Amino acid sequence: MRVVLGPNRYGKAEVRLVRVVRDGGVHHLKDLTVSTALSGDMEAVHLTGDNTAVLPTDTQKNTVYAFARKHGVAEIEDFAILLARHYVESQPAVHHARVSVEEHFWDRIPVPSAGGGPGAGDRRHSFVRSGRETRTCLVHHDADGTTTVVSGLKDLVVLNSTDSEFSGFAEDEYTTLRPTADRVLATEVSARWRHLPAGPGKAASYGESYDEVRRHLVEAFAGTYSLSLQQTLYAMGERVLNARDEICEVRLVLPNKHHFTVDLTPFGMDNPNEVFHAADRPYGLIEGAVLRDDAPEARFSWE
Amino acid sequence: MRVVLGPNRYGKAEVRLVRVVRDGGVHHLKDLTVSTALSGDMEAVHLTGDNTAVLPTDTQKNTVYAFARKHGVAEIEDFAILLARHYVESQPAVHHARVSVEEHFWDRIPVPSAGGGPGAGDRRHSFVRSGRETRTCLVHHDADGTTTVVSGLKDLVVLNSTDSEFSGFAEDEYTTLRPTADRVLATEVSARWRHLPAGPGKAASYGESYDEVRRHLVEAFAGTYSLSLQQTLYAMGERVLNARDEICEVRLVLPNKHHFTVDLTPFGMDNPNEVFHAADRPYGLIEGAVLRDDAPEARFSWE
Amino acid sequence: MRVVLGPNRYGKAEVRLVRVVRDGGVHHLKDLTVSTALSGDMEAVHLTGDNTAVLPTDTQKNTVYAFARKHGVAEIEDFAILLARHYVESQPAVHHARVSVEEHFWDRIPVPSAGGGPGAGDRRHSFVRSGRETRTCLVHHDADGTTTVVSGLKDLVVLNSTDSEFSGFAEDEYTTLRPTADRVLATEVSARWRHLPAGPGKAASYGESYDEVRRHLVEAFAGTYSLSLQQTLYAMGERVLNARDEICEVRLVLPNKHHFTVDLTPFGMDNPNEVFHAADRPYGLIEGAVLRDDAPEARFSWE
Amino acid sequence: MRVVLGPNRYGKAEVRLVRVVRDGGVHHLKDLTVSTALSGDMEAVHLTGDNTAVLPTDTQKNTVYAFARKHGVAEIEDFAILLARHYVESQPAVHHARVSVEEHFWDRIPVPSAGGGPGAGDRRHSFVRSGRETRTCLVHHDADGTTTVVSGLKDLVVLNSTDSEFSGFAEDEYTTLRPTADRVLATEVSARWRHLPAGPGKAASYGESYDEVRRHLVEAFAGTYSLSLQQTLYAMGERVLNARDEICEVRLVLPNKHHFTVDLTPFGMDNPNEVFHAADRPYGLIEGAVLRDDAPEARFSWE
Repeated sequence: MRVVLGPNRYGKAEVRLVRVVRDGGVHHLKDLTVSTALSGDMEAVHLTGDNTAVLPTDTQKNTVYAFARKHGVAEIEDFAILLARHYVESQPAVHHARVSVEEHFWDRIPVPSAGGGPGAGDRRHSFVRSGRETRTCLVHHDADGTTTVVSGLKDLVVLNSTDSEFSGFAEDEYTTLRPTADRVLATEVSARWRHLPAGPGKAASYGESYDEVRRHLVEAFAGTYSLSLQQTLYAMGERVLNARDEICEVRLVLPNKHHFTVDLTPFGMDNPNEVFHAADRPYGLIEGAVLRDDAPEARFSWE
Repeated sequence: MRVVLGPNRYGKAEVRLVRVVRDGGVHHLKDLTVSTALSGDMEAVHLTGDNTAVLPTDTQKNTVYAFARKHGVAEIEDFAILLARHYVESQPAVHHARVSVEEHFWDRIPVPSAGGGPGAGDRRHSFVRSGRETRTCLVHHDADGTTTVVSGLKDLVVLNSTDSEFSGFAEDEYTTLRPTADRVLATEVSARWRHLPAGPGKAASYGESYDEVRRHLVEAFAGTYSLSLQQTLYAMGERVLNARDEICEVRLVLPNKHHFTVDLTPFGMDNPNEVFHAADRPYGLIEGAVLRDDAPEARFSWE
Repeated sequence: MRVVLGPNRYGKAEVRLVRVVRDGGVHHLKDLTVSTALSGDMEAVHLTGDNTAVLPTDTQKNTVYAFARKHGVAEIEDFAILLARHYVESQPAVHHARVSVEEHFWDRIPVPSAGGGPGAGDRRHSFVRSGRETRTCLVHHDADGTTTVVSGLKDLVVLNSTDSEFSGFAEDEYTTLRPTADRVLATEVSARWRHLPAGPGKAASYGESYDEVRRHLVEAFAGTYSLSLQQTLYAMGERVLNARDEICEVRLVLPNKHHFTVDLTPFGMDNPNEVFHAADRPYGLIEGAVLRDDAPEARFSWE
Repeated sequence: MRVVLGPNRYGKAEVRLVRVVRDGGVHHLKDLTVSTALSGDMEAVHLTGDNTAVLPTDTQKNTVYAFARKHGVAEIEDFAILLARHYVESQPAVHHARVSVEEHFWDRIPVPSAGGGPGAGDRRHSFVRSGRETRTCLVHHDADGTTTVVSGLKDLVVLNSTDSEFSGFAEDEYTTLRPTADRVLATEVSARWRHLPAGPGKAASYGESYDEVRRHLVEAFAGTYSLSLQQTLYAMGERVLNARDEICEVRLVLPNKHHFTVDLTPFGMDNPNEVFHAADRPYGLIEGAVLRDDAPEARFSWE
């Protein structure tokens, strides 16, 4: 028996980058959390502590900030690709780079409606953070020339207050659940979708692609009469694939955020699906991939 | 020396209540976290474990759900008042009730713009959680007949990318900070405001009052050319008091979410307030109250 | 009606300070989170943004680190007193300082038991973080010469698997809870205790005082046959006051971490208090103060 | 192009199970968080919402509790194997089960040292939660008869206050870091290790195996003079593999919890590695696998 080094990577995680672009008096804000990780000829550092091949994680942090100034930040996927290629192309010992970026959205604070008054126009540089969701991407670039792009979102909480059933399920000796023909269906969507190698495709940009995929996911959730959360999951993925040529696979993680109807009969009341207890734990957890049958090999796309 | 019981209260915290109202096919959603706490003749339970005076916290949980069905939930302040009075009026041993409520906002999922198509109209019962802020209230009702109402919000993150300076400050031997004439000013607003006893006043409801106070807070933040976060804090409170007759005091907790300009000179670049590091800890913390000089005694309002 | 400034303070929160003392080859570790807040002649900065009276929060951060080098860090209370006095005594505009400190405990990694071998002795500088609790203190110093010291702990989770009942409670129309003669009682202790002005008193140090108070709290929790969590709370406070001359008041916040017996009868099994569901929310919340009848006025001690 | 279903699983996550065993007056406590996930003939439920193959997640929750009563809970790996096999063997549509368990440790509250006194002996049923680490396991069982067991731990924070260097690293135009011959090295260990199919091997139980692997990880961290965190990672994994025959692969995730020496020169002080700022973000992140060259195929072990 001999001990050997297996897959490994190292990098700087959660670099918090905020970039402000001043377009005359109108400012634009980009708020990102960037993580980079490198792999390659890393036997020596693991076995003997020889750091010759190791570009410090501190340097990786600096690079994120420097690239934001040098190249700007348009879509997070483009920024991630730029960083990933940079490491592989500039560091001989680095054969693979993984870059993940999260984008935190902000809205402009609206200008007061009536009469202008003191301060009108100030909102050109005033923002309020939108808590609705976080946009994500995961980019890999390999020394063999392959670049993979997965886009995504998380923290998107959605709820249908009807048009959801659950019945006809398998039962065993530990089953006590009763079937229901009308329940609340709520979930916190974590979705990631893999782009075909050609890039954002018919979309003009990764940004446009993101907006459309997000819209299809939400509309599929809202528009599906659901017999199970699995069915909803599949409908969400299928709709994205049918609508967006640039996407070849969608992976969804959907916790079932249970809303239990409270039993009010001890107090002489009925409860016609009006009053719910929103539970924390445990929760159902539905995970699945939906893909085109001609999707290319994923390789390291999702890792 | 004798050991005695001091101030005390007990109750059920963080009851998660979701209520759905069906108005034909259009559903309305209310998502609350409710905490209740009671005080009164509680010597016996503390000193000997005699529970005669103790209405169980489990009963308090039941009451929240039952009241949601019996009375509905309009504004959170009204719901909190109802609960607080109920305990004091129905339990001889309870002389004081404290009810705090958080409201989590949801937006309606928009109907697809083009052509209707399958599923159009479904969005009448489909929602996406708005992450923008949490609305809060804190209500006390005492056996002497006094009811106090404090409304508030938290988790509201705002940012001005310019029109903020910091200079002319005191310096001592441990001061290394340089004055700045242009910086990013960002904070996560926690605000609470005390209503005059008359209730929402000129506002038709606590809901209208909330919307207006929130608007004034945000606009004052955005519209103030800031020489210090303290100045911004005062401007926010002052504006609410000047605009809203029903409010007599505003208390604000404003962490200074530092955005540090990254030094890019080692890389041969300038950084004209474009690239920032958003720091986590430590952070400045500015806390203050702004009030009308004729504000009545606060008593237990804020506790 | 005129708008006026009410109580206010500002400072630097959550300065993360780790100090290593090298005693020959044996190292000692102190891991603190320090927050300081100042009050005084702060009208100008709030009303006009004039920062003349404002010692920057950045300076306060520097001072924490500089004092750690200059004065060392023994007990957190002593360190907090040093900082609080410094600000009030050195800054004319500062009339009051509030310093809160959290201490995160570490244990030494034990030396391998057998044979020594390579690396034996290394553990003199190797530590593992103890997750058992966080020690806290809150110190105020006022320009009138008053210093108040409150010590405390949080995140201490304790559980009795028997010797806890709950029965004989008040009931109303919303009560469904059944009395129980044997239940699990678990809580996450947040405790703070106020020192008499003389300081740690008969204890040689705040450290010794802390160790003893903590021991009495835990033993009182464990040793009390509990008819209600309120009774346990009072017993914990009372025991500290009886045992420790230097303490005049104890305040406790005890969430009731419910452990519900799972109903296994649908599966043909009994459940003699063996299998429990540990619930998250909602939870009971018991808060109370226990004090000596001759305790001096608390003034700003707890704020 | 056709849309197809890819890999998927569903189950109940984070079932909070506490089990108390009464051994005369001495109680034993087991505190677990259990998640189960099933896969198999799940085309129908995704494509049409036909739940015939779906054993409800609610049933999975019930099963966890019922099994705790029926079979007890010894080592978490054994409990997970029991659950995983149960689903695959009892549900025709289920071909694969994944069970992950976390164990939260508690210590016994010590009996007062002196004299016994009232309450002595009570501690036989009194516990305090140890915050030191969380034990984990991940078990898969497949219809082809394969069972895989991965054990692990997380939340274990360790620190060496010396015997750590970092120098001789690669540099590029974005490198500003200076080499250091003496630094603090701290990390929060997340480790998982794969068992050979034979089970805990020379260890009498998974519990003994856990204790030994944990000890080796901690001692390797403490005993390694570190030239890089990668070197420490490898040393930790290598030591486990050399010492424990039952383990064939170790995977480690080690965030570099940076402790930066504070520059005190502006205040006329040196700082001989005494005062540190413990930073939050960004942080280095070192991930790697160490394995025996004859380790069998991992298949789904880590998923």
